[in-house]
Amino acid sequence: MPEFYRNQNRKLVQETIEALSSESSYELVYMPKHGRTMPSVKVLGDLVDKLREVIFPGYFGNASLRPETYEYHIGVNTDAAYRLLADQIRKGMCFSCTQGKSQSCEECENKAPQMAAAFISRLPEIRRLLATDVQALYKGDPAAKNAGEIIFSYPAIRAMTNHRIAHELRLLEVPVIPRIIAEMAHSETGIDIHPGAQIGEGFAIDHGTGVVIGETSIIGKNVKLYQGVTLGAKSFPQEEDGTLVKGIPRHPIVEDDVVIYSNASVLGRITIGKGSVIGGNVWVTRDLAPNSRVLQRKATATMFENGAGI
Amino acid sequence: MPEFYRNQNRKLVQETIEALSSESSYELVYMPKHGRTMPSVKVLGDLVDKLREVIFPGYFGNASLRPETYEYHIGVNTDAAYRLLADQIRKGMCFSCTQGKSQSCEECENKAPQMAAAFISRLPEIRRLLATDVQALYKGDPAAKNAGEIIFSYPAIRAMTNHRIAHELRLLEVPVIPRIIAEMAHSETGIDIHPGAQIGEGFAIDHGTGVVIGETSIIGKNVKLYQGVTLGAKSFPQEEDGTLVKGIPRHPIVEDDVVIYSNASVLGRITIGKGSVIGGNVWVTRDLAPNSRVLQRKATATMFENGAGI
Amino acid sequence: MPEFYRNQNRKLVQETIEALSSESSYELVYMPKHGRTMPSVKVLGDLVDKLREVIFPGYFGNASLRPETYEYHIGVNTDAAYRLLADQIRKGMCFSCTQGKSQSCEECENKAPQMAAAFISRLPEIRRLLATDVQALYKGDPAAKNAGEIIFSYPAIRAMTNHRIAHELRLLEVPVIPRIIAEMAHSETGIDIHPGAQIGEGFAIDHGTGVVIGETSIIGKNVKLYQGVTLGAKSFPQEEDGTLVKGIPRHPIVEDDVVIYSNASVLGRITIGKGSVIGGNVWVTRDLAPNSRVLQRKATATMFENGAGI
Amino acid sequence: MPEFYRNQNRKLVQETIEALSSESSYELVYMPKHGRTMPSVKVLGDLVDKLREVIFPGYFGNASLRPETYEYHIGVNTDAAYRLLADQIRKGMCFSCTQGKSQSCEECENKAPQMAAAFISRLPEIRRLLATDVQALYKGDPAAKNAGEIIFSYPAIRAMTNHRIAHELRLLEVPVIPRIIAEMAHSETGIDIHPGAQIGEGFAIDHGTGVVIGETSIIGKNVKLYQGVTLGAKSFPQEEDGTLVKGIPRHPIVEDDVVIYSNASVLGRITIGKGSVIGGNVWVTRDLAPNSRVLQRKATATMFENGAGI
Amino acid sequence: MPEFYRNQNRKLVQETIEALSSESSYELVYMPKHGRTMPSVKVLGDLVDKLREVIFPGYFGNASLRPETYEYHIGVNTDAAYRLLADQIRKGMCFSCTQGKSQSCEECENKAPQMAAAFISRLPEIRRLLATDVQALYKGDPAAKNAGEIIFSYPAIRAMTNHRIAHELRLLEVPVIPRIIAEMAHSETGIDIHPGAQIGEGFAIDHGTGVVIGETSIIGKNVKLYQGVTLGAKSFPQEEDGTLVKGIPRHPIVEDDVVIYSNASVLGRITIGKGSVIGGNVWVTRDLAPNSRVLQRKATATMFENGAGI
Amino acid sequence: MPEFYRNQNRKLVQETIEALSSESSYELVYMPKHGRTMPSVKVLGDLVDKLREVIFPGYFGNASLRPETYEYHIGVNTDAAYRLLADQIRKGMCFSCTQGKSQSCEECENKAPQMAAAFISRLPEIRRLLATDVQALYKGDPAAKNAGEIIFSYPAIRAMTNHRIAHELRLLEVPVIPRIIAEMAHSETGIDIHPGAQIGEGFAIDHGTGVVIGETSIIGKNVKLYQGVTLGAKSFPQEEDGTLVKGIPRHPIVEDDVVIYSNASVLGRITIGKGSVIGGNVWVTRDLAPNSRVLQRKATATMFENGAGI
Repeated sequence: MPEFYRNQNRKLVQETIEALSSESSYELVYMPKHGRTMPSVKVLGDLVDKLREVIFPGYFGNASLRPETYEYHIGVNTDAAYRLLADQIRKGMCFSCTQGKSQSCEECENKAPQMAAAFISRLPEIRRLLATDVQALYKGDPAAKNAGEIIFSYPAIRAMTNHRIAHELRLLEVPVIPRIIAEMAHSETGIDIHPGAQIGEGFAIDHGTGVVIGETSIIGKNVKLYQGVTLGAKSFPQEEDGTLVKGIPRHPIVEDDVVIYSNASVLGRITIGKGSVIGGNVWVTRDLAPNSRVLQRKATATMFENGAGI
Repeated sequence: MPEFYRNQNRKLVQETIEALSSESSYELVYMPKHGRTMPSVKVLGDLVDKLREVIFPGYFGNASLRPETYEYHIGVNTDAAYRLLADQIRKGMCFSCTQGKSQSCEECENKAPQMAAAFISRLPEIRRLLATDVQALYKGDPAAKNAGEIIFSYPAIRAMTNHRIAHELRLLEVPVIPRIIAEMAHSETGIDIHPGAQIGEGFAIDHGTGVVIGETSIIGKNVKLYQGVTLGAKSFPQEEDGTLVKGIPRHPIVEDDVVIYSNASVLGRITIGKGSVIGGNVWVTRDLAPNSRVLQRKATATMFENGAGI
Repeated sequence: MPEFYRNQNRKLVQETIEALSSESSYELVYMPKHGRTMPSVKVLGDLVDKLREVIFPGYFGNASLRPETYEYHIGVNTDAAYRLLADQIRKGMCFSCTQGKSQSCEECENKAPQMAAAFISRLPEIRRLLATDVQALYKGDPAAKNAGEIIFSYPAIRAMTNHRIAHELRLLEVPVIPRIIAEMAHSETGIDIHPGAQIGEGFAIDHGTGVVIGETSIIGKNVKLYQGVTLGAKSFPQEEDGTLVKGIPRHPIVEDDVVIYSNASVLGRITIGKGSVIGGNVWVTRDLAPNSRVLQRKATATMFENGAGI
Repeated sequence: MPEFYRNQNRKLVQETIEALSSESSYELVYMPKHGRTMPSVKVLGDLVDKLREVIFPGYFGNASLRPETYEYHIGVNTDAAYRLLADQIRKGMCFSCTQGKSQSCEECENKAPQMAAAFISRLPEIRRLLATDVQALYKGDPAAKNAGEIIFSYPAIRAMTNHRIAHELRLLEVPVIPRIIAEMAHSETGIDIHPGAQIGEGFAIDHGTGVVIGETSIIGKNVKLYQGVTLGAKSFPQEEDGTLVKGIPRHPIVEDDVVIYSNASVLGRITIGKGSVIGGNVWVTRDLAPNSRVLQRKATATMFENGAGI
Repeated sequence: MPEFYRNQNRKLVQETIEALSSESSYELVYMPKHGRTMPSVKVLGDLVDKLREVIFPGYFGNASLRPETYEYHIGVNTDAAYRLLADQIRKGMCFSCTQGKSQSCEECENKAPQMAAAFISRLPEIRRLLATDVQALYKGDPAAKNAGEIIFSYPAIRAMTNHRIAHELRLLEVPVIPRIIAEMAHSETGIDIHPGAQIGEGFAIDHGTGVVIGETSIIGKNVKLYQGVTLGAKSFPQEEDGTLVKGIPRHPIVEDDVVIYSNASVLGRITIGKGSVIGGNVWVTRDLAPNSRVLQRKATATMFENGAGI
Repeated sequence: MPEFYRNQNRKLVQETIEALSSESSYELVYMPKHGRTMPSVKVLGDLVDKLREVIFPGYFGNASLRPETYEYHIGVNTDAAYRLLADQIRKGMCFSCTQGKSQSCEECENKAPQMAAAFISRLPEIRRLLATDVQALYKGDPAAKNAGEIIFSYPAIRAMTNHRIAHELRLLEVPVIPRIIAEMAHSETGIDIHPGAQIGEGFAIDHGTGVVIGETSIIGKNVKLYQGVTLGAKSFPQEEDGTLVKGIPRHPIVEDDVVIYSNASVLGRITIGKGSVIGGNVWVTRDLAPNSRVLQRKATATMFENGAGI
């Protein structure tokens, strides 16, 4: 390569580095100015892997477990998870801090391990809830061979593991991290559940891709959703100055034993009564009484001749 | 951090480990009691990567291939895949065994490598079928620059590679593993094909996110699907005791040369006749004669004034 | 395992290796015959990771950044990205070359680093555009706590980072690589944006799974899409010989300030006028005047008695 | 690079591969013909690392140990070590088998885990012995700040850890593996102790490089060696046919409380009596009575004028 | 494997874990009771690798350096080294603390980064000194082709890099860590230099295996040693109670321009005068005047008949 | 940590980075100014590992080899080794180039792969020679159980593998790299053999630590050395200007069937006649006739009373 071009290229690269390092450029991307380490998406991924090993021992990770050695593996993984989590929570607090909150560093140093320990103490309940989800999926899927297969391979279990973890962290008011953990599951499964959503036991999602469950949704026991279902908001009330009002209940309440078929949209703070069934592709924006059945309009199968496309 | 809080935290973690290690808790998650190693999702991921390298040499993996060295690389990867697979099949058999089947351990030790070898012998046919899929995608996509680009980057090829592998394993009655391999592709592409589905050559999926193809689907040659298409079940017949009847045909038969546009749902054991076209968002639950054209009802573009949202 | 079966298995594997290594088999999968190294999907993944670290320093990667050390990290990562990219572009050119183009090897050796340097020089603008996307997401999402959280966890930012990178590479006429980079984002987020699409600043996608944006789409400023929206083609004009006409404009033009709600399909080279709103599930195939509002037909909530499913 | 040379080079490589794959060539290097997997030097390295973590918890490995969590870490590492070792012993038996021994495969499958468990049960005693070695080093080295520092950084402890492991394995008649473990320590420390050597408690080696301790050496309690000391054989009796007589005692017996200074050689099956001191560079080939002192001949410091070197 | 043996083995492993976890056993190995993380040999290895990259940029590590990008790489590596070192120093202080020192934790938290920064500020001088060592080796070795080759491959440079780092850390009174760093070099090169040794510029070691340089040695400028040279202590004065007196000068002072040939031993706090030459295998325990030449006694080449060996 | 100290520390680090990046500092360490990538010690380590796998298949690396699959593994590894080597040779030439040689870049681009291919073609002979070394060690060591054990664990084989590789590369006049490969073995085994040394078949080294074999040594067939033996130079002739004369023969010629016992030094361009035996610790600087026996002077075992040490 001729020297002239080589030098040209190098010069361009050099100038770009300077441009990217100028304060006016990097300030655009909201880096905290205190220079403390941010939470790490990679470490949080490892954390969730460890928690998954703790909750479903033997299914994930490399360990060869036997009844006599369960406790050792669970002990090592739980202890490691506690330490990783305490560290990440502290970093998450620092990160949010720059963005405006106020608390002494020392206060965070103390609170982070307390929050981590409080979270860890919720793991047996998280496992119990997930076991009900496994059971619900097994009962409802004629293609499932056994319950273990569901733990190994159903995206709903992967998504709900992350959700039940993220939801507990959010209840503890851990900043930033719950959302990152929820997005991991969204990326892996196409199931997008906001950490704020409250979901009862025995929850099943079939296939799952495209499911969206909004922040203030409340879901009862033994509810089942199919792929593409949205539990969304209908509108976003604005403040007088045009900014959105944050945090108000705006997603559906879905009572026990409801089934919602594929690609249905249920929008707004409405209540879907116990035992209702909502058909595929249906669009629901009003309360439904218990045991309602809302059907897709009959498909108009229009036959036509020319095949010029649609 | 004050010693008191430190001790509190440690105590909580300690108690949780004990709770998680109690038999009543870990029994909830169906771990086999014989203490034999389960299949490993991570190893199966490596296995599929090796098979992908074997099928499409040079496109994946680190190898720098030349015509003179093809055979060495294919030899090493195929041999490694055979060994990994035999080991995982054996572990899969052990895993399913606990869940209720009965067969001597020795029988499984012998059958696992036989099944693995039988699978390996299907690789040339799997490659041939995938080559017809590549060709179909290339012909049908005006954005495609060349066939190689399709192998490199089209999610349909990634999904179909896993499917054609998983389907062969299922034909050999390998337990658990086909489903895990199918879910890997679902996670990576948003395309959810059950290993049981029979799919003919020249199969094309465009974009793909949200596609669902059920366990007993039968798809002919040169069929094309767009994103969000569901080939699903309409209802699940129950036994008298309320449990689902497993394994009966309940998904569509799609004959040769059919095209199904985005987000259409085709439900139940119906037959879509050869050469039919199903429009986007359409919901089909009855047989279609050959060369049918089913169109989306004309969109009612209601103009309205206030922008309060929907 | 009895020796006889062991030998049988080995023989099967051996024969398969030979079959897979036969020219007639591997020619099916379009390997370039010149034996030069192809681009590497894995290396391109590392490249995008490095670029993401450069664009959003501190959010991704392991680095602990402080104002005094920004420049070093950005310098190292940018320089490494330049080298990796120059190498991959060269390999991409070789790869496409086999498929039919004509250019001397020396020409490619020279052009590759020039293209890489030209790309690098676009990074400050890519960062600026992504910062407007972050801002748009923050303003529009009542669940967002701060702008940093959006960089960390919103799939739209991950998808748009890859898109703005891939789009610049495509403007430079880099072969193959833009599409691979776009597919990475598709796999991770379920958002499928063709590298050819032109997208203005302040672009927001909510949830995102199932979004498809076609090759010749043109999108203005401050546009917002929800999950499942398709900006697609209506039909594919064919040449007289039946092959598709490649490259002609066939996807929508979406003007500034348009909002398109979930699962709407906008198809064909039509224009959606400035400030229009398209409701969920709507199917649009004709031009819309500025400030149009197209609403979903009112959902017919048919109550019915029997629960036999749908 | 001109095509001609490229082809020449490729041809040479190709021919070499064939030559190296010819039976006449690879038979030179004693590969077992049964095709079973050999022991792995890398896995044995990992095994020793795990054992080192078990013996000296917290000093090696990544674990953050606390009194409450010791047991979990020790449990996980010990269990993993047991499994790795059982597998490697079986492979070692297979490997030696080809070389001529005779035993059914099934017998080895059973014996390997028994030998591994028997070895594991020796770990508490191995730890106790090593603790006496640490203590001996601490007392004898004026540069040592505390006992922990010795565990962290003294080559003698690294060498003796491997030796005490290898020696126990050899007592169990495990083939091949003891020698591989001994060589790891030799490579890392320059201290070459044959696994057969019997070494009492409180053994210290200072600096260590160049120390050689032969197969049939017997060393008492509280012995100390300096760098470069050889406990070797004086001659190798031959059979009538000229082959060496294997296994006969041919290295020294060193009784309790002996000190041997740097680079001394003690050769043959002689006895160095309790409490003796052997000076640096001395060459000893005869028995020494208890409490002997053997001094280096006084150094003749010959002054000379011309500096032409030696 | 018969169930009985399997259970026997498992029971042995289980009992061993309990034995190893008993307080009486693990107390033998001096683990600190406060449960704080110890320094990590692995991290210190990474630290030294980073420092080596900083000192000799381009020779080690993966970086592709150009004059324009030196500063970025040096910046990133130096900053990372500072952070790693501060953390390890703090852990080293905690570790030594248990062993008896007294200082508040807060004091250590503050002092550790100060010590790390002070060390970092010595790097330019460390580089300058090592450059003189490279020069000395180049001039003195007829087999050396160029100075760069010496940096790449001479064990003396590897050993001296660790030594000059470890010596600076010791001057700063960093506990434990200097010794660990020195042992790394000892393990890799067979050259054992205590961190306390003072060594002037232009220091050369040829071959190096077996060299030992004691804690209180003082070495002038342009000194050269060959393999196997010991600068050791002659005797260890004891306190009345029999414990060794720690820290008193007990190793040689070697003045400028001295050459010591292979396997010579120089013992005790003696002074080897400027410009002296000590021959191979010589044993020196008294002061030598400047420009002395001490020769090996002439070798007595005793010819003898019988070849029975030695 | 108080803000003041934090800032002080950061400032020190910052200033050091600037000092280390100044031209006057980094010029001290001989970095080539052309900015081309240097050879990589790490890559050369991987290269030697691959070659070791090729030469002794199954002993090193992870592969599970069977007679049917030897050729594939050897093919893949040999091909990879050829590519790595060609690349490293080119970088080595660039590196040496800066140091003063003159050759066009294009010439090096062509020559590097030719040299790599020529080296590869020597592998069968290298394997044959190493097989004779294995045989020699097996015959001479009463502690060796079988020939395979020697390949697995004898440092002499590790050292000779590197030497026979490095020596061939040196014969091809490859710069820098032979020396780096030789030093790897020196580091791992304590055996320091210069790549220039010519060594015949059936060469054995027992224990090995401290062995030094100089650049111009010539060693016949079936020679055996023990630990600590030096084949060195006696003096270094200087040019009139004081620089050393490089490359002249200055190390011993050792004829066939010679045995040299531990720590003996053989110095200068002398000839040790066929079949001679040199005793331990002996210093030889003159020619020896064939079948000479040079014995260590009888050890004077001076008994003495006081135990004040030496």
